[in-house]
Parts: sequence; C-alpha cells; structure tokens
Amino acid sequence: MKRRVAVLGATGIVGQRFVQLLADHPWFELELLMASERSAGRKYVEAVHWVLEKPMPKKVYDMQLYPIDLNMLGKERIDIVFTALPSDAAKELEPQIAKKGIVVVSNASSMRLEPDIPLLNPEVNADHVEIIEVQRRVRGWSGAIAKVPNCTTAIVSLTLKPLLDEFGIGKVVVSTMQALSGAGLTGVPSMFILDNLIPYIEGEEDKVETESRKILGFVKGNAIEFNNSVDVTASCHRVMVLEGHTAAVFVELKKKVSIDEVAKAMEEFRGNKIRGLDLPTAPPKPIVVRKEVDRPQPRLDRMEGNGMSVVVGRIREDRVLNGVKYVVLGHNTIRGAAGNGVLIAELLVKKGYA
Amino acid sequence: MKRRVAVLGATGIVGQRFVQLLADHPWFELELLMASERSAGRKYVEAVHWVLEKPMPKKVYDMQLYPIDLNMLGKERIDIVFTALPSDAAKELEPQIAKKGIVVVSNASSMRLEPDIPLLNPEVNADHVEIIEVQRRVRGWSGAIAKVPNCTTAIVSLTLKPLLDEFGIGKVVVSTMQALSGAGLTGVPSMFILDNLIPYIEGEEDKVETESRKILGFVKGNAIEFNNSVDVTASCHRVMVLEGHTAAVFVELKKKVSIDEVAKAMEEFRGNKIRGLDLPTAPPKPIVVRKEVDRPQPRLDRMEGNGMSVVVGRIREDRVLNGVKYVVLGHNTIRGAAGNGVLIAELLVKKGYA
Amino acid sequence: MKRRVAVLGATGIVGQRFVQLLADHPWFELELLMASERSAGRKYVEAVHWVLEKPMPKKVYDMQLYPIDLNMLGKERIDIVFTALPSDAAKELEPQIAKKGIVVVSNASSMRLEPDIPLLNPEVNADHVEIIEVQRRVRGWSGAIAKVPNCTTAIVSLTLKPLLDEFGIGKVVVSTMQALSGAGLTGVPSMFILDNLIPYIEGEEDKVETESRKILGFVKGNAIEFNNSVDVTASCHRVMVLEGHTAAVFVELKKKVSIDEVAKAMEEFRGNKIRGLDLPTAPPKPIVVRKEVDRPQPRLDRMEGNGMSVVVGRIREDRVLNGVKYVVLGHNTIRGAAGNGVLIAELLVKKGYA
Amino acid sequence: MKRRVAVLGATGIVGQRFVQLLADHPWFELELLMASERSAGRKYVEAVHWVLEKPMPKKVYDMQLYPIDLNMLGKERIDIVFTALPSDAAKELEPQIAKKGIVVVSNASSMRLEPDIPLLNPEVNADHVEIIEVQRRVRGWSGAIAKVPNCTTAIVSLTLKPLLDEFGIGKVVVSTMQALSGAGLTGVPSMFILDNLIPYIEGEEDKVETESRKILGFVKGNAIEFNNSVDVTASCHRVMVLEGHTAAVFVELKKKVSIDEVAKAMEEFRGNKIRGLDLPTAPPKPIVVRKEVDRPQPRLDRMEGNGMSVVVGRIREDRVLNGVKYVVLGHNTIRGAAGNGVLIAELLVKKGYA
Repeated sequence: MKRRVAVLGATGIVGQRFVQLLADHPWFELELLMASERSAGRKYVEAVHWVLEKPMPKKVYDMQLYPIDLNMLGKERIDIVFTALPSDAAKELEPQIAKKGIVVVSNASSMRLEPDIPLLNPEVNADHVEIIEVQRRVRGWSGAIAKVPNCTTAIVSLTLKPLLDEFGIGKVVVSTMQALSGAGLTGVPSMFILDNLIPYIEGEEDKVETESRKILGFVKGNAIEFNNSVDVTASCHRVMVLEGHTAAVFVELKKKVSIDEVAKAMEEFRGNKIRGLDLPTAPPKPIVVRKEVDRPQPRLDRMEGNGMSVVVGRIREDRVLNGVKYVVLGHNTIRGAAGNGVLIAELLVKKGYA
Repeated sequence: MKRRVAVLGATGIVGQRFVQLLADHPWFELELLMASERSAGRKYVEAVHWVLEKPMPKKVYDMQLYPIDLNMLGKERIDIVFTALPSDAAKELEPQIAKKGIVVVSNASSMRLEPDIPLLNPEVNADHVEIIEVQRRVRGWSGAIAKVPNCTTAIVSLTLKPLLDEFGIGKVVVSTMQALSGAGLTGVPSMFILDNLIPYIEGEEDKVETESRKILGFVKGNAIEFNNSVDVTASCHRVMVLEGHTAAVFVELKKKVSIDEVAKAMEEFRGNKIRGLDLPTAPPKPIVVRKEVDRPQPRLDRMEGNGMSVVVGRIREDRVLNGVKYVVLGHNTIRGAAGNGVLIAELLVKKGYA
Repeated sequence: MKRRVAVLGATGIVGQRFVQLLADHPWFELELLMASERSAGRKYVEAVHWVLEKPMPKKVYDMQLYPIDLNMLGKERIDIVFTALPSDAAKELEPQIAKKGIVVVSNASSMRLEPDIPLLNPEVNADHVEIIEVQRRVRGWSGAIAKVPNCTTAIVSLTLKPLLDEFGIGKVVVSTMQALSGAGLTGVPSMFILDNLIPYIEGEEDKVETESRKILGFVKGNAIEFNNSVDVTASCHRVMVLEGHTAAVFVELKKKVSIDEVAKAMEEFRGNKIRGLDLPTAPPKPIVVRKEVDRPQPRLDRMEGNGMSVVVGRIREDRVLNGVKYVVLGHNTIRGAAGNGVLIAELLVKKGYA
Repeated sequence: MKRRVAVLGATGIVGQRFVQLLADHPWFELELLMASERSAGRKYVEAVHWVLEKPMPKKVYDMQLYPIDLNMLGKERIDIVFTALPSDAAKELEPQIAKKGIVVVSNASSMRLEPDIPLLNPEVNADHVEIIEVQRRVRGWSGAIAKVPNCTTAIVSLTLKPLLDEFGIGKVVVSTMQALSGAGLTGVPSMFILDNLIPYIEGEEDKVETESRKILGFVKGNAIEFNNSVDVTASCHRVMVLEGHTAAVFVELKKKVSIDEVAKAMEEFRGNKIRGLDLPTAPPKPIVVRKEVDRPQPRLDRMEGNGMSVVVGRIREDRVLNGVKYVVLGHNTIRGAAGNGVLIAELLVKKGYA
C-alpha cells in the first residue's frame, strides 16, 4: 500500500524536483502540494515557473496549490511530508507536523545538528535512523523528523566514507564550484554572474565543515556523536552552471596507499548500510569513478545514476597532505536535495518508521 | 631614448595584450610584429581576431605582420623581444635571439626551471635578475632570456610572498577557477563549456607547484635555488569567465597570527624589490584587500591596478591547516602574462640589462 | 525485417544525434559507423567527444569506427546510409553510394536544390518522394538520395505550411537566434561568444530563402518546382544557447484572419502527407502552440515531441506586413537534422523506396 | 559655470551609468543622489551593487544617498534632475519637479508620447526641444521635462534617420536581441536565461513601433506630430549578453539605391541638428559602419564612441521589402539610456533651456 505524501514549498527548485521524483514513485502517492500564500489557490501548472530539463509531469498539472496550513496535515490523510521550506519556517512548522504523527523528511537546515535528529546520507549512515526511537521518546512525537544534509556535504561525504573506512582520514580541504540552482530559482541575478563567479555562499562552508562530522559520526546512547577525527576546511564558490556541484577535495590518509587502491575503494563502495534493502531511488553505484583526465564535468555527468550517483575523477597522489586529491561532482538538487530526501523516505518506510 | 621592441606571436590573446600595452608605452617603441605563416604578410588589423575589452589601438592597424624570421631580429634594429610563442617554438628560437644580443622576455613555459634563467614576478623576486650575469657568462650570450611565470603562479605567489616574509609558510593548498582566455583565443569550444566547467588544465598544476618554489627562492652562487619550505598542492579548473583567474588558497602559517595581521601584511606589501624604481607598469598596490564577503569577483575586480594588482578577499582563519584561507583573483593575461612581461622588461631596463 | 543502416560522419554533433536516435530504433539496425581518418580505427566510446544531454547508449560503446571507404558500403551489407558529412565530401561520395543501390539520407547541403532530388520535411512535402522515380530513371541509380533541409528552414517551413494552405502567404521576414550546436562541436570558440552574439552564419540566409521555396513547392513532371509565391528574406544570428534555433517570423497573409484562426491552423496541422503512416519518429503534433507570453524558450521547449515538434508562441497581428508575427523554436540537431533524417528514412521505407 | 545636477534612482543600472558619466562631466556638477528608502541613508559605495566594467569613480564613494524627497529639490540647489525611476513614480514626481523650475531629463516611459514633451535622440530630432516653449506655457512650468526614448528605439531610429532623409522609408521590420542590463540589475534570474533566451520583453515592441514615429516626426504648432509614413513592426527578445542591444532591421526604401549608397548615407550622417554645438557627449560619428561579414558584435563593438555610437554591419539588399536589411548594435544603458540623457541635458543647456 502506497504512502500518501505531501510536498511543502512545492514551487521552488527543490520543490519541483520533489514533485518530479514523486509523480511516478512506486511507493509514494503525491496527495498534496503546499506553497507560499502568493502561489496558493492556483493550479500547479499555472503557479510554477518550471525549469527542469524534462517537462512537468502531466499528472501534476491540475493539482491545487494550498497555502501552508497545519490543519490540512492530519495523520488520516498524509503519511510523509517532504519539506523544501526556508529554514525559519521549517524550524517552527516541522516539529508541529512530527507531533501530529507524520514523518517529516526535511531539506531545511534548521535542527540538522541536534543530537536526536538523524542527518542522513543513506549509503553512508543509514544506521543513524535508529535515533528516531530516542527522538520520539524524548520529544513525545508519534511522527518524526529526518534531515537531508546540505547539498555539498552530501556529495563530498559520500566519497569520504570509503576512504575513512578503508584507510582512515585526517585533514580534508574542500574547494567547491557550485551550481546556480543551489541558490534557488531566482537567487542569482544573471547580471551578477555572467562572465563572472561569486566566491561566497552564505553559511555553506560552515555546513560542510560541521555536517560532515555528524554524517560520518555514530549513534552512541541517546545521541549521534560527531566524528571529530575528520577535520574539514572548505571554501565555497558559485559558478555559471545550472545544476551540479563540483568540489576539488584534498584528503590526508592515515595509511600509505596507491591511487589504484583509492579508486577501487570508491568504485566498490555500495553503501553497506542500505545494501539489500532494494530502495527504488538508490543508484546501482553511489560513486562512479572515471579515468579520463578531464572528468567529471557537470553538464555531461550530473545525470549519472539518474542524478543519484556522484562522479569522481582525477584521483591523484597528494604529497602535501600525505594522501590523495580528486574532483567530485554531484547533482545538487537530486543527490544533494530532493533525490536524497526521497531515498531517506524509502529507508524510513523499509525500516518501519514511516 | 626608447627601446625598440618586437612581439613574436602577436595575434594570439597574449600577443594582443602585449600589443595593447606596448602601443603607447613611455619607454618602448613597438617596431615589429611577427606571427605564424598563416597571418604573416597581412596588416595587423586584418589578420587578428581582436577580442580585448578596448578597441585595437589605431596606431597598430597598419603594422605589417611578418613571419618569424631570425634574420629580421638584429641588435641594430631591436632591443627587446617579447614572445608569446608555443613552448616548442620558444625553446628553439629564444636562445638564438639571446645570442644575437637581444633581450628576450618570454611568456613560454620552456626553460622556466633552468637555474640561470630568472623567472620573474618583480614585486616578489626582482633581485633574481642578477642571475643574468651568470646566464651570459655561462651561455656566452650578449642578450638574455627572462621568463614570465605561469599565470596562476604569478597571481598566487604574489600573495604568498608577504605571508612568507612576515609569518613563514608551510603547506599550501590551491584550487583554481581559471578563465577561458588562458587557453588561448580558440582553445575552449563553447559547446564544451556552456553550462559546464572543465576540471583539468594540462600541465597547470605541476607549474603552480614547481614554479612557486623557484619564484620564492633565492640566488645562490651560479643558480636560483628553490625554496623547498614552500609546499604547494594544486587542483586547476576551467570555468566560464572571459578573463581573470580566481584561486582559493589555504596556507599553513608558521606563526599564530590574527586575520587582521594577515590582511595588513598583504595590504602593506609593496614589493620592496622594485620600490622606488618607478616602473611605469607597476601598480600602486600589488595586492588590494577587499572586506566585502563576496569579493573578489572576476568581472568586477580584474581591472584593479589596470589589471596588474591582484585582489584578495575572504581572509579567514583556517584551523585545519593552522593558518589562513583566502580567495585571490588576478588578471591572467595582464598580471599573469603580458603585463608582467612588460613590467619585467621595465625592470631589466632600469637595472641595465636591456 | 529491420533495415541495416550506416552513419557516415558519426563523431560530429549531427553524427552523435544519428547514433542516439538509431541505437534503439524499431525499424533500423545500426551496423556501421564511419568517420574521418583521424577517428577511424578506434572504438566509438574512445573516439567521440559525446556532448548530448543523455549518456551515450551502451550498445554503441564498442562499435568500431571505420574510415570512409566506399568498398565497405555494399547492398549486401547496408540498406540505408545516413550522412553527416561536409558538403564537399558529400557531393563526391553520395552519388556513388546511390549508384551501388543504397538509399542515402543526407544532411549535407550539396545537391539540395537539384530538381530530381527530394528535399524533405515529411509533414510538409512527403509527396515529393515520388521524384525518386525520376531520379533513378535519369541517373541510372538503383539506390537514391534524399536530402534533409537546412535546420532553420526545416523549422520555419513547418509553420509556414498550414498558413500557406489555409490562408495563402506572401512576404515572409525571418530573423533567427541560432544555437551553438549548429556550428558543430568545435565551431564557435567560447572566447568569441561569451557575453556576445555573432550576427552572421555563412550561407544560412540564402538557404532559408531558397530551400523554403523548394520545400513548399510541387512535383511537376520530371522536377520539383519551387513555390515562388513564397517570398522569404532572412537575417541569421548565433547566440549562446546549446541547442534549439529560435526564429521571429513575420508573414504576410493573403486572407484577413484572426490570431485565433492562425493558432488553430497551426495546432491542428498534422502533416496530412504522412498521416496514418505511423512513422515511429513522427511527433504527435508537429507544431505545439503555447499561450504564455514568454514562450517558446530553447532550454524549456526544445525537447517537445522528443525534439521533433516545433513550438510556436506569441502569435500576434502584424499590421505592417498585413498578416501575423510569431516566434518559433525547434531543436536544430533533431528536428533540424538527424531526427528529420530518420523520419525521412522511415517515410522511404513505408513508401517502398528503401 | 557648471550646472548642479541630481540623479534620482541612482543605485540601479541606469542610475549607475548616470553617476559614471556625470562624475567628471565638464558642464555638470553631481550634487545629489537619491534612491529608494531601502538604500537611503547610506553612502553610495555601501548601498550600490556596482556592476559596470570600470570601477566606481572614487569621488562618489562617500556621497550620501537620500530618499526621494521633493523638498530637497529646490531651484536654489539643483538645476537639472536626471531620473532613472520606475514609470509610476516618475509619472507622479516629474511634473512636480518641473513645476519647481528644475529641468528634468527622464529615462522613464511615462509621458513619452504626450505632444508637448520632447522625446529626444539629439542627432535625429534636436529641433524638437523647442516644444518646451509650448510645454512651459501650457503647463505653467518654469522648469521642463525632456524624455529619453526607449533604448531599442533610440538605437534603431538613429539608423532610420539618414535612410528617411536620403531615400524615404516605408515598412520597417525590427527583430531584437537585447541585453540583460535592459531588465535592470536583478531583472533576469540566471536560472531563467543560461543556455536559453526569452522571446518577450514587456511593452518593448509597442514602444519601438510608436516612439520611432514620434522621434522621426516634426514640431507642428503646439505639438510634435508623429511621422506616420514610418511603419514599424517589432519582435523583441532577451539574450545572454551583459550590455548592448542588437537589432536585425529590414527597411523598405522609397528609392532604388545601392548598398554602397546606403552605407555612405549612414557613415556620413552626423546629426545635422546638433552639428557645431560641440556637445561633450556627442560621438564623432553617431553611426559607425563596419564592412566585416560578422560585425557588429555586442562585446566587441558596444563601446564604440564611448558607447554613444551605434555600429551597423551586414548591409545587404532586401528584395522582399524592396529595400535593405542590416544589423545594428548600440549600448543600451549608454546610447539607449544614461548617455543619451546626458547628451539631451547638454543640448538643453546649449539651447538655453537649462
């Protein structure tokens, strides 16, 4: 029996991705779309400025857009809510929805660092879901909140996981080239970015540095504990690319290994934590390694694994950090946002939390 | 009395910059333009696909383009040759020109690492010019060869110099976002880069890692010795920007200092080595530090100091490398190529080598 | 039984589209790929710089690329050859292939205007195929040559056809904004087009003005006669768009009609000439009319009908030409090249010519 | 003695151009900057997101931004007000300023078509200034309002004038490719325009069609009469170019003339109406004709005549309209807005109206 789902913030770019991925989902039935007052009351096809590479699914054309109203979100009607809300609104609304017995899968940055809120990148830390038991007990919720990590962090941490497991890692330096879609539909005016780049994304570096340590951490008693052996510094930059975040990553490895061993560890990584669960949105290979000297490239590689795989290239020795350096690319609104959200929801269903 | 100068490889993008900067130079008279067989025999205005932001100087319109012919390059006619040739051609031709008694200021990568060839970023290492004495003695030249460093290296090393002098530096991680012009006029097809980036530039990372150590090195006896305390690792990427290379730089500092002290060291850096020489192309401030959170930006900042200053922003503490991280931008075909070449030539004149 | 097909010029952008469209075609089996000497001898996956929005079909990865060799093109091996060759090579080779009994569907501009060579935009002039009888008789061929029209002409003429049939047309003014892919993989250097446009495409205006009259013409005896009542003037420009040619079209109409009647004529146009033939590549609606004020847009609309529909918007009265003006967009390498070529081949099969 | 001037709407893109052009003007002293409430109270350097190709003039850094307050605009303090306000605000405020005895040069579209308001493109219709006598008499103003035409109209009408005068013109078809800056600093989100174009600009086509006839009209008694022999139809499109509007223009000529005669008429056009007035902002040649097949191009040609010349290329015969077709490019925020505004103010000073 399909879970009935709602999308809150359905008109923005992450909302559009949620709608695209949920319109024909085998486990989920898209029941309800909510958005800001400005759009509410109109049909989806009329209210949204659709910008995705494939046309809007016909079946959502005539869905009504409702204003965000907690009264419409009852357990009898909705099982899972996907949110693509601004952080402030999310902070206020999401706990109330969880209290009503609904499971919230949220793309907002609020509460991401709280010790009883799982911050999930399923191939990396699917086992963190069990903290929901604590969350429910402590907060008195029958629903739950699970968080989608920051887009860049989701992409980079996927590649750090096999390195951490196989060789141990220490210092990590990350320098990003991030897509326009990360700033939302209208976030970057064309006059500001054409023939240009913007070397600043508010809050992003801090998220990469902090969230990585939570995702790579462990459940201990009533909390998720950060992995403080992972020591990340980031510099984040916006470039003129529609979709796909690219990061140059320099990693100190605790063991002396060859480039081939690193490539192998990444290529063979399947995310043991979700192996065998047959989650529909899980890509066959979370990390695809390319050998060409000039890959990954956003326009050519972002749709790998339907946008759920990250693509790694240019793995080379790094004498300075005593480890390796490489380039990783991931689709920021799929792997880094809505796609990861849907994968998390699938995990929650499979594990009996939703 | 003005020095008579020639430009070899005058039709490419670096050649165009040389022509632009030399057309009205107070110390140099542009006498001769040479280019490949394909362009030779035509007027400059007809042969060149001029792409610079200002129109071609009227006075070069009708200059004849000659094929590259050493017989035309005699001491009686030309004092200084600026070359923007491919590396292979440069390797063969430049020593022959130097032998004829002409001073060669070369943008080609050949010979950059030879111990008696100065690799000059004047504000950083103007004192290296003295190695020309060795060069002349050993090679039996009456002319000389001085090399312009790789564009990225010139830009980044300018910012490393005050840090090295004031605080001492160790590990350096550099991740670049480089302009299209760095690949030459037709180097990057638009179908390859629109809505995309290319995470590879042939040979670039190696140049940044190696040339930095020579530029920051010292003359010792008959050779320029590399500064091996500087330990650079680089990842280089091409983005859709016309001009201006941006680099995220992470630097280990040997002393514990505040962000303000770092900013001050950069801002007050004047390149002691050329101070007081009154070189016409030297910018008032080699490093301009901006306080805004979102600067430097290529389109807005690349013309700072007529393209000869680099612009630094976002200086922040780096706990991971025990030092600082910052973003630096420089004009790759001015500061990183032709502009630096002209500045080097001015230095050579002032010091009596040309 | 599937027809066995070859693609000549398989590595360029039109060649890539042919390969993409033929890899899983219900009627055609891709048997042979040929390209220039430079690529020949390598596997397709290694030789081609694939730039299409979807990854290269796995089944062509290991296909061998052969040099262009007429000896390999025998009737016993290949039924249909699709060519994406430069005009000069096409002019020489295509008649020889047709002579061998093979049907050639050619994207090259050579021979497009010859009276016994059909220039096909199937929804518009499928009946022109019958001229192949004349072609075979006169030229002594057992094969045949059919030509794909110029990309812009294919797109614009599709919209002119219903206007011509329903209302009669006279003067037509066409001003285009054409995609980079129209110039081939490496045709437009990024330094020439970023923050720019190029108001010239060699030969294009003449093709639009002349080919339109042939496509809208009629078979008369042994020749296709041009429709000289259609009087087209064009101005063609290149803009920074990857795929999709947009044209502003101003048309004099012989009858006074309303905007709604014009929209209806376009929307209801089904290309009677191929109706009921069930050609797999024919789109359900050759012309899709949109009502929004700001459509069509290349990135959002080019894949309409899998790239085989053109999208028309902004139909409005034109008092100056006594008719209408509108904007039309079509996918230049699908509807305007390879897709149209495949549709033509399907037509030839259905009509018994291949 | 210099006129004291103010800029209203000083932070937008046209406002920035006004500030740039007025900062060092020989006849004008920039006294006062006003902007919306949001920016007011701050220094110019802090409030504005400066995007022009040259850095902000140092002398305006510390100018205070005031909210728009009519009380501050007194004859004793300000002689001329340049406005870059939204149309609604302009409609309300400008007449009140004119009433106070101040001369208003306005870039807003309000009132452009009123019979006693001159719509000036000085080289074309400087003589229309005399209607200010009527305006003052009828409206009881001691100041005045003069309007800057729509950007596209200013650019195109400059080329139509010599054709009209020398050969007579009839039907005119205009298809534009307009720069992002025309939509203001933040008007076009990058997600909407990258790898795309937008075939619609609100109100633009109507302005081109109507304003052209007023600019090419004549003063007759108490009104400026439209030139109804000029019959313009336009289609307007936004492309990914920072600055510079390009238009393909097709013109019916009343006389049969050669291409060379047309080129000559344009090249020799000096705008008789302002010849000999020595207005500082008037370019030496209002129209520059280029012979290369692929010019004009926005990035290469927009700064011709410091952005005040338009550049025409590709003049060719047009058999369909019985005339010529050509491509024209002009700098939309200089020739098409602020630059034209400054030129108009210079004209008003010279003619004794300001």
